[in-house]
Amino acid sequence: MIMSDIKEMSLKYNLHSWSAQKAINPTVVTKAEGIYFWDEDGNQYYDMSSQLVNSNLGHGNKAIVEAIKDQADKIPFIGPGYALDVRSEAAKAIVEASGLEDSKVFFTNAGAESNENAIKIAKQYTDRWKIFSMYRCYHGSSAGAGMLTGEPRKFINEPGAPGFIKYDGPYAYRAPKACKFKTEEDISAFYLELLENQIQYEGPHQIAAIFIETVVGSNGILIPPKGYLEGIRALCDTYGILMVCDEVMAGWYRTGSCFAWQQFNVKPDLVTFAKGSTCGYVPLGGVIVSKKIAESFDHEKMWCGLTYSAHPIGCAAAVATLKEYKRLHIEDNVAAQGKVLGELLANLQAKHACIGESRQIGLFSAIELVKSKETKEPLVAFNYDPDGLMNKIIGMLKAEGFATYSHENMIIIAPPLIITEEELRTAMKMLDKVLDSVDNMIQ
Amino acid sequence: MIMSDIKEMSLKYNLHSWSAQKAINPTVVTKAEGIYFWDEDGNQYYDMSSQLVNSNLGHGNKAIVEAIKDQADKIPFIGPGYALDVRSEAAKAIVEASGLEDSKVFFTNAGAESNENAIKIAKQYTDRWKIFSMYRCYHGSSAGAGMLTGEPRKFINEPGAPGFIKYDGPYAYRAPKACKFKTEEDISAFYLELLENQIQYEGPHQIAAIFIETVVGSNGILIPPKGYLEGIRALCDTYGILMVCDEVMAGWYRTGSCFAWQQFNVKPDLVTFAKGSTCGYVPLGGVIVSKKIAESFDHEKMWCGLTYSAHPIGCAAAVATLKEYKRLHIEDNVAAQGKVLGELLANLQAKHACIGESRQIGLFSAIELVKSKETKEPLVAFNYDPDGLMNKIIGMLKAEGFATYSHENMIIIAPPLIITEEELRTAMKMLDKVLDSVDNMIQ
Repeated sequence: MIMSDIKEMSLKYNLHSWSAQKAINPTVVTKAEGIYFWDEDGNQYYDMSSQLVNSNLGHGNKAIVEAIKDQADKIPFIGPGYALDVRSEAAKAIVEASGLEDSKVFFTNAGAESNENAIKIAKQYTDRWKIFSMYRCYHGSSAGAGMLTGEPRKFINEPGAPGFIKYDGPYAYRAPKACKFKTEEDISAFYLELLENQIQYEGPHQIAAIFIETVVGSNGILIPPKGYLEGIRALCDTYGILMVCDEVMAGWYRTGSCFAWQQFNVKPDLVTFAKGSTCGYVPLGGVIVSKKIAESFDHEKMWCGLTYSAHPIGCAAAVATLKEYKRLHIEDNVAAQGKVLGELLANLQAKHACIGESRQIGLFSAIELVKSKETKEPLVAFNYDPDGLMNKIIGMLKAEGFATYSHENMIIIAPPLIITEEELRTAMKMLDKVLDSVDNMIQ
Repeated sequence: MIMSDIKEMSLKYNLHSWSAQKAINPTVVTKAEGIYFWDEDGNQYYDMSSQLVNSNLGHGNKAIVEAIKDQADKIPFIGPGYALDVRSEAAKAIVEASGLEDSKVFFTNAGAESNENAIKIAKQYTDRWKIFSMYRCYHGSSAGAGMLTGEPRKFINEPGAPGFIKYDGPYAYRAPKACKFKTEEDISAFYLELLENQIQYEGPHQIAAIFIETVVGSNGILIPPKGYLEGIRALCDTYGILMVCDEVMAGWYRTGSCFAWQQFNVKPDLVTFAKGSTCGYVPLGGVIVSKKIAESFDHEKMWCGLTYSAHPIGCAAAVATLKEYKRLHIEDNVAAQGKVLGELLANLQAKHACIGESRQIGLFSAIELVKSKETKEPLVAFNYDPDGLMNKIIGMLKAEGFATYSHENMIIIAPPLIITEEELRTAMKMLDKVLDSVDNMIQ
């Protein structure tokens, strides 16, 4: 098949996510290796978002590929009711990585389904029906995950079910103007006070769970200020509410530790994961269910299930992926390159008029583009970019060889965790150059 | 890893679908080939449900396995925004198999997500918000698919969103006692009249779509009587409602034709599929979107998306699977073995006091167990089997080497579509023997 056919066929036969189909011009990818991929004309791209923040070990990792091939040869599929070596191994490895003693794993296909099942588990365990989640968060696009979601991708699911309540999470850069914060603790105290009030208003005895993206992902890498997660944990303990950390993006060393919550003094009741658990080589997600809750299903039927729960090839890929994180000393590389990335972002923020704020933890970062540092007016209005300005900027980056995606007025920078310092510095120069052009746009 | 460890680890680390965890004793599977699989003690099982009605080509199909391995070597993952040879090829092959000219495919991971996205597409296209689906149907367990679902697995998702309306689909065996039917057309007319009344009561201008499992699957292989699907199509045309055929189980030659609706004089607006598209070797599902609706997304953003839409390995597996259906003349084998199965079931129904009704189309069938043919009282009450009687019967079948699953008072018989007549006759003798015991139970 020649390349022009692939694109033509793609436009003729495939419906592409989140798009007007005539507005897109999909690049045909012909090769991917390490932190790079190439298009049909041989152009090389730095994959600066690890695709959708899932290819944490980059492209073409041989160990994961071999695990997939081996399992395909052995038993590519067997129903989830059966026990299988790789199913047991994958669950064991994930429980051990979490450090949540005597927890268990319920496997799904991806992040949305992980959150869907966490909702069901929380409702069944608590016998309560309200669920809290944050504005400016994304938990997936199926109806349940969509009702958790606190940004415009939720609208298509509305009217939703009752009981899905949104709260304001910490976002100091755009906090109400009356707020005066001196320390991170001040920020946490403000948002926790808002949240506790809302819990009271909604009836704590009705609230099953508080969901949180431990570090908010596509909506702008919002990092919890000191004491915030601990405060959520305390509220949950006070009111008998479950704390659910969505680690779909933040998990698997993206922020430095295996799970982001491990950098804070908390233990969640449920953890949802996906993406980095297999680097996306095979769809796999899941829910880590802490001991007390898992035990509640010893004698009570758990009302969760799906055909591909604990898919053999997905589990085999997960076992290999988790081993690779260790073998490649990914935690160390994220620490080292995260430091470099933080410094580079600080320099860019100082230099460029168009950067309102940059936020970074590990290799998980975003820059927030504004028309003015002083007014903080976003470069594009919330959920309104009729001229496709952000797409244009993403296109300019791509033309330089820097592939990533944007969300609202933010550009995500989250390269594969195997990136070297030299690669990181080279890529960030491309970003620097494009930001010069954005500076010119707003002047 | 020794076998006892696999089971022990599975019980320690994995949460199993739809189960009280201490009530299960998962069989460790060590090998699977053709229509058989084997446990850790070397016991052989006839896979008489194709796992969860997904392994249509049985186990260990070499062509699918090779396609998975090849794609894993090439590009195991790239984001859904990019064009890729296997993505284009898979969509083209599926569109061509459907015969729905100029339709397009939106890919998902599995059946639940396919239905989730069909809901969103129908709502967006029609700008209406109510969705009809049948009692005694199953469309998946995520919140949206769960709200479509018309059986007890929906309860955990409740309270659901408003606008998900349930109608009574054709089920002549348990039709209201006042109904006197002489022909299949009578049955259709009765249920269509009920449905049209309900459409009127709910406001046709508010109804986006009518979902139907073309042939109801796990809830008992309920086959649409003559004229029923055509009647739904006519109602949809009259009121501007979309007709959505859920072919997650019924699709991919299970009923004889590639899609079940192809045996009737209808063309649906949306078709959801999964399972047989890859035989489950890799998770993949999707929605076939007919021309008019697909075109509406040319210039309007489609609000559907997921990280693993059109997963490269899933698409590669689908391309290979569809070729295998042709190469192995599956359509012919389903015609031939379906005929044998129908005869065998008729004989069993005549012989056994415990069979109220058997229903079969192609290699998709169920027997409905009753306490009495005369009263039709189900062997176990609806959603209430405290003694686990059905599980016990499934266990007796398994002990004979006949592996399948039950739902309510029904046993599903849906072997891989590659089964030979000899294999089918051998397996059905096992069923015959166990039904003798069930006959004794009810006497």
